[in-house]
Amino acid sequence: MQITLGELAKLVEGTIVRGAEDAVYMGLSALTDALPDEVSFFGNPKYADDLSKTKAGVVLIPEMEVNAPESVALIRVSNPTSAFERVVHHYAAPKRPFVPGVHPSAVVAEDVSFNPDKVCISPNVVIESGVSIGDGTFIGAGSVISIGTKIGRDCQIKHNVTICEGTIIGDRVIIFGGVVIGSDGYGYQLVDGKYQKIDQLGIVRIGDDVEIGANSTVDRARFGETVIGEGTKIDNLVQIGHNCVIGKHCLFVAMVGVAGSTRVGDYCIFGAQVGVAGHLLLEDHVTVAARSGVINNLYSGNTYFGYPAVPMKQNLRHTMHVKRLGKFFERVRDLEAKVAKLDGSESNEDASAGKPD
Amino acid sequence: MQITLGELAKLVEGTIVRGAEDAVYMGLSALTDALPDEVSFFGNPKYADDLSKTKAGVVLIPEMEVNAPESVALIRVSNPTSAFERVVHHYAAPKRPFVPGVHPSAVVAEDVSFNPDKVCISPNVVIESGVSIGDGTFIGAGSVISIGTKIGRDCQIKHNVTICEGTIIGDRVIIFGGVVIGSDGYGYQLVDGKYQKIDQLGIVRIGDDVEIGANSTVDRARFGETVIGEGTKIDNLVQIGHNCVIGKHCLFVAMVGVAGSTRVGDYCIFGAQVGVAGHLLLEDHVTVAARSGVINNLYSGNTYFGYPAVPMKQNLRHTMHVKRLGKFFERVRDLEAKVAKLDGSESNEDASAGKPD
Amino acid sequence: MQITLGELAKLVEGTIVRGAEDAVYMGLSALTDALPDEVSFFGNPKYADDLSKTKAGVVLIPEMEVNAPESVALIRVSNPTSAFERVVHHYAAPKRPFVPGVHPSAVVAEDVSFNPDKVCISPNVVIESGVSIGDGTFIGAGSVISIGTKIGRDCQIKHNVTICEGTIIGDRVIIFGGVVIGSDGYGYQLVDGKYQKIDQLGIVRIGDDVEIGANSTVDRARFGETVIGEGTKIDNLVQIGHNCVIGKHCLFVAMVGVAGSTRVGDYCIFGAQVGVAGHLLLEDHVTVAARSGVINNLYSGNTYFGYPAVPMKQNLRHTMHVKRLGKFFERVRDLEAKVAKLDGSESNEDASAGKPD
Repeated sequence: MQITLGELAKLVEGTIVRGAEDAVYMGLSALTDALPDEVSFFGNPKYADDLSKTKAGVVLIPEMEVNAPESVALIRVSNPTSAFERVVHHYAAPKRPFVPGVHPSAVVAEDVSFNPDKVCISPNVVIESGVSIGDGTFIGAGSVISIGTKIGRDCQIKHNVTICEGTIIGDRVIIFGGVVIGSDGYGYQLVDGKYQKIDQLGIVRIGDDVEIGANSTVDRARFGETVIGEGTKIDNLVQIGHNCVIGKHCLFVAMVGVAGSTRVGDYCIFGAQVGVAGHLLLEDHVTVAARSGVINNLYSGNTYFGYPAVPMKQNLRHTMHVKRLGKFFERVRDLEAKVAKLDGSESNEDASAGKPD
Repeated sequence: MQITLGELAKLVEGTIVRGAEDAVYMGLSALTDALPDEVSFFGNPKYADDLSKTKAGVVLIPEMEVNAPESVALIRVSNPTSAFERVVHHYAAPKRPFVPGVHPSAVVAEDVSFNPDKVCISPNVVIESGVSIGDGTFIGAGSVISIGTKIGRDCQIKHNVTICEGTIIGDRVIIFGGVVIGSDGYGYQLVDGKYQKIDQLGIVRIGDDVEIGANSTVDRARFGETVIGEGTKIDNLVQIGHNCVIGKHCLFVAMVGVAGSTRVGDYCIFGAQVGVAGHLLLEDHVTVAARSGVINNLYSGNTYFGYPAVPMKQNLRHTMHVKRLGKFFERVRDLEAKVAKLDGSESNEDASAGKPD
Repeated sequence: MQITLGELAKLVEGTIVRGAEDAVYMGLSALTDALPDEVSFFGNPKYADDLSKTKAGVVLIPEMEVNAPESVALIRVSNPTSAFERVVHHYAAPKRPFVPGVHPSAVVAEDVSFNPDKVCISPNVVIESGVSIGDGTFIGAGSVISIGTKIGRDCQIKHNVTICEGTIIGDRVIIFGGVVIGSDGYGYQLVDGKYQKIDQLGIVRIGDDVEIGANSTVDRARFGETVIGEGTKIDNLVQIGHNCVIGKHCLFVAMVGVAGSTRVGDYCIFGAQVGVAGHLLLEDHVTVAARSGVINNLYSGNTYFGYPAVPMKQNLRHTMHVKRLGKFFERVRDLEAKVAKLDGSESNEDASAGKPD
């Protein structure tokens, strides 16, 4: 997107209070996030402090006195919130209407249980035997729903998704493009020099209101169930191993991996690219900072960081120690010189300083 | 899954020896892995030691005296192994039967070489010209098998898989949902400020008994072949770069990445989220611990860890050094005080202690 | 591939100058990359130095005196470059011809704007309402092009790709198998103990000449646009978060993740498995070494490394400090002994040496 201040004022039917008509803006953001080439809005007096510090290029303001940084262009409108929404929708993606019915190109087994007047099955979808689908659910083009899968109400299974045999999905679940649910867990036994597959007989169970981001993978259990608790939100390219039991209302930011049989409590948060080893127990309300590697059980209410992940404070101490080393080496050299003077020997500084062991 | 002790006893036709009938269990596991809310079984006297230490909630036991922790509920059955299997199958995913034939929605080029009485081509599969497919092979819904690909016998190409031009796949290979085999290698040349694509003309060759996990990617070679050796098992979301030659019977746990042209020997093991740089030589029987970054050649029989990955012992030494720094700083401060007393000067402790350099 | 020296000589119609006829070669590479079991070629006198140091197993050479290591077999041909090309094509993947037209199994909305004589729509493609596609563009089997997407000329959208609503794609863009463009950004608000979805209303815009590797994901903006600048090349399994604005001619090697709202300048390079936090500003010509974690703004022309990523030199200094610690501990122990002698006290070495704090 590219819009000048002049065009923007016309679009929102507002008046330029401050700023050059030909200044160009390229994005839309909240007051606290906006950059100098972005448009924002001041819709509620309680954000007056955010407005006074915003870095936005232009802000849509109401019919009142406001306090914004000098550099910020201003457009006065009657309702900044709805004016901003108008801009958002001017540049927004078109919305897919929910049109119930089964596209003729879809391949749906005879015994699938669903109400074709209340479910949308898109083109080239494949739905196998024994599947049930709740009302209000959308199945996107090219998705495959395998034998015996149960899908709840008002779900959105987007495009090219693969749901393997026997998966159980709650209500209002959103599964984004390319996700694979219920692939075999990774388990082998070395027998006579060859890895023999260990049968993966279990399933995946996904709670209500879960979201799973594009191209993420959740493996079926060896026995029993891999579980994603209700309300948990998983970002793109995340891997959840077999037999993991993930609690409710957790956040897994992009590219997190959790190895098999680990249990995660409720309200846990995993920053991007975190790895969690298998067979661990993470209590409720655990936070793990981005790119950490967890190899021990973690305890409720703490924030962990590093590899191995330790409580944040402990990690910061180690980091600071390493940072201080240069200064510290100098102090030891200094000591060595003093001691050499005191005991009359030569300093060994020249021999070893600066050399790795 | 959720099952009470009473329901479990009924399901396996056993007798409760110990435990409350309304206790609830939520999973199934081996004796060594089971958690307090899980069901396990004691099927073989040689695991008596595992039984004596198990943390399982309930164990299915045979008609004999057993030694299990007090807290563990027990159900006596005539055959614990088959009783446990009954529980497993009670909760197991339905199994997909192998039904040979070509689904009418599949698009199969005229010259594809296969026996339609012995191969299963699922709905919406696309098979292009010059492909051959061995007997007993299953091609899952929505998969695309590109021009000139050769697939061996008894393979399972699951759903929404993409196999690019000219790929050669051995026998008994399993490729899980969303995998992309034979995408172009990542190679560009900067010419006049623009990256020009370097043609990727080679193929991917996959040996017998290989498994490749969901949404993993293996790039075609620039020239010649990218090779995955027989018996190698690759987990989900793994990336193998162009021209890599991976040996036999290796394990690649989830989210490992191997850059282009690296050669890996036989029986190598890569923990989750490992990265391996390009153009390296890893000998046979190399193990790389999870989350390590390999930037040098690695030698047979060793275990490596860290970034850069070094032999495990060396890495542990560095880690221990850093852990000891706090204690160590104190010792140096102590020395400084003593030396100051000895030579009559002031200690510099106050000036620099605690400050990063 | 497997070829003996004798077979190779026959294939290229050349003469063996040096080497055993039954020696076996398994790959093809440039002089500087080739390994002892690979075939290379010497096609231009300006690479004489590379030839003199090559580790290739056999080199195709012209009718002139050459200087190659003793161990390298040589085959003389009239034109080494075209002879090598013959070997490459002998082992190359078959090439997919561009055949314009719409496969009858494709599902194309009535209002899609494209010239069916100049565009190739493969089997089982789904193209929704309001899409436009430029001449010379190829859409691979199983791909889904959602409502309102604009695709330029001469693009290659490979197989099983998902393009979500409203995406704008330039000319000569290549999107590899399994990619998902325009999935929702990851944004939630915790309200009464549940994460509420923040609407993701924006789109993704992809510039000319961009490539996006297999199974990568690019999220749509919350408002406005997520942008991939022209000429930028993205490898496999990369994640670009919502509202990121990526500059021109950048390189993202495999498995890089960039969190939301970060801005990256032109000509930036990200090594494999790098993570970049959200809301950062990276100037032009920034290079980040593999596996680094970026949590601060980065400045033009520098190379960064580590987690947190710092200028390469600073990182190397810290690494060296840690490596020197063993030696250093010895020096302090030595000092303690000397000081103990000087002040007549006992050394505390025995008490604390080797113990972590």
